[in-house]
Amino acid sequence: MREPTPPAAPAGSYTPTDRTVPTRSAHRASYDRELVHAILDEGCVCHLGYIRDGAPVVLPTLYGRIGERLYVHGSTGSRPLRMAGQADPGLPVCLTVTHVDGLVLARSAFHHSVNYRSVVVHGVARRVTDPQEKRAALDALVDQVVPGRSADSRPANAKELAATAVLRLDLDEVSAKVRTGGVDDEPEDLSLPHWAGVIPVRRQYGTPLPDAALSPGIALPGYLAAL
Amino acid sequence: MREPTPPAAPAGSYTPTDRTVPTRSAHRASYDRELVHAILDEGCVCHLGYIRDGAPVVLPTLYGRIGERLYVHGSTGSRPLRMAGQADPGLPVCLTVTHVDGLVLARSAFHHSVNYRSVVVHGVARRVTDPQEKRAALDALVDQVVPGRSADSRPANAKELAATAVLRLDLDEVSAKVRTGGVDDEPEDLSLPHWAGVIPVRRQYGTPLPDAALSPGIALPGYLAAL
Repeated sequence: MREPTPPAAPAGSYTPTDRTVPTRSAHRASYDRELVHAILDEGCVCHLGYIRDGAPVVLPTLYGRIGERLYVHGSTGSRPLRMAGQADPGLPVCLTVTHVDGLVLARSAFHHSVNYRSVVVHGVARRVTDPQEKRAALDALVDQVVPGRSADSRPANAKELAATAVLRLDLDEVSAKVRTGGVDDEPEDLSLPHWAGVIPVRRQYGTPLPDAALSPGIALPGYLAAL
Repeated sequence: MREPTPPAAPAGSYTPTDRTVPTRSAHRASYDRELVHAILDEGCVCHLGYIRDGAPVVLPTLYGRIGERLYVHGSTGSRPLRMAGQADPGLPVCLTVTHVDGLVLARSAFHHSVNYRSVVVHGVARRVTDPQEKRAALDALVDQVVPGRSADSRPANAKELAATAVLRLDLDEVSAKVRTGGVDDEPEDLSLPHWAGVIPVRRQYGTPLPDAALSPGIALPGYLAAL
């Protein structure tokens, strides 16, 4: 008789806080660590919010994940990176990643919606000063664009490293929000003469366009063909 | 002899401000009204930033455009909508829309990037109180998901209207930022043995999934087949 398979280790959850418990559609919120990681790992562009002169700013930027840490980067001259370097302990930010999975077309205008998966991270972004952590973060940023890519590119040299600032944001105050499924019309609307349903949406990669100066004999690597 | 075609009316531009002139990659910034409208009209989900208890919050939400006004909506009980209703003159926000068009894989890790088009709108979001403007805004929100859809759905009734709050954000302090083209490697890296180029990315719609309760005989409307 075989030993019973041990139960999977509990996935673990983030602890909900006042900021991560939504006032609306609370049933769509999740604090599951694996779900949060999966949503983050499927994208490479986030929307980073911070406060400048008392007003909110939201900018799209690349990110990378290593375990329970997210990293964003930019020129040492860019505004949020300078601000994070000057502030103590860092720059309060909100980092949000969203995937749209479908357009939900209900019979009623009111019940129109989209299927989506999003992650919202609240916290303080701190400048990374440790050189090893900085290098690892830059690798993670490249691998977030295409997994496996950092090993197939020239690493940053000293000049490039000096010109690049990296911010770290710990995954601590985090929530996911997910809408899936079909339309949610009122019972009395079901007989209305309007088409209703879901239009799936997904990200599609096109045929890779090689650089005109690509050396002859360099084939498309497997990790790109796999996209 | 035919009359010469009159020159196209000047597209017009938004006036750059301290907030809309980037510190980095200024050559990618644009204030062209037509470009801004085109980027906005291609999407339906924005990232809305506001300040709550002194910290930034960034949430994905649907939006709609009517001329030089953007609208977002939500339950009258949702946090930003309540805050905008209580604040005078409104809620300072930053609304950002981003489309990712390609993954830019350079030979050097440093020059990895993405091709994208984004619009960032700064301003004050105000609650819409005029009933006609509110109805028009809700139509615009539905038509932003699928053009033509609002005319083929049941309009909001009095109860739904009362439960929905709409915020207006004028397109006034606005910029677009666009990266296009190929890799931008250093000349001395061109002979490195790494594949380099661009992986195009686009949004793809799947086969529409009709609601299980769809009345027999309701065909897929033309505006959906066109997707």
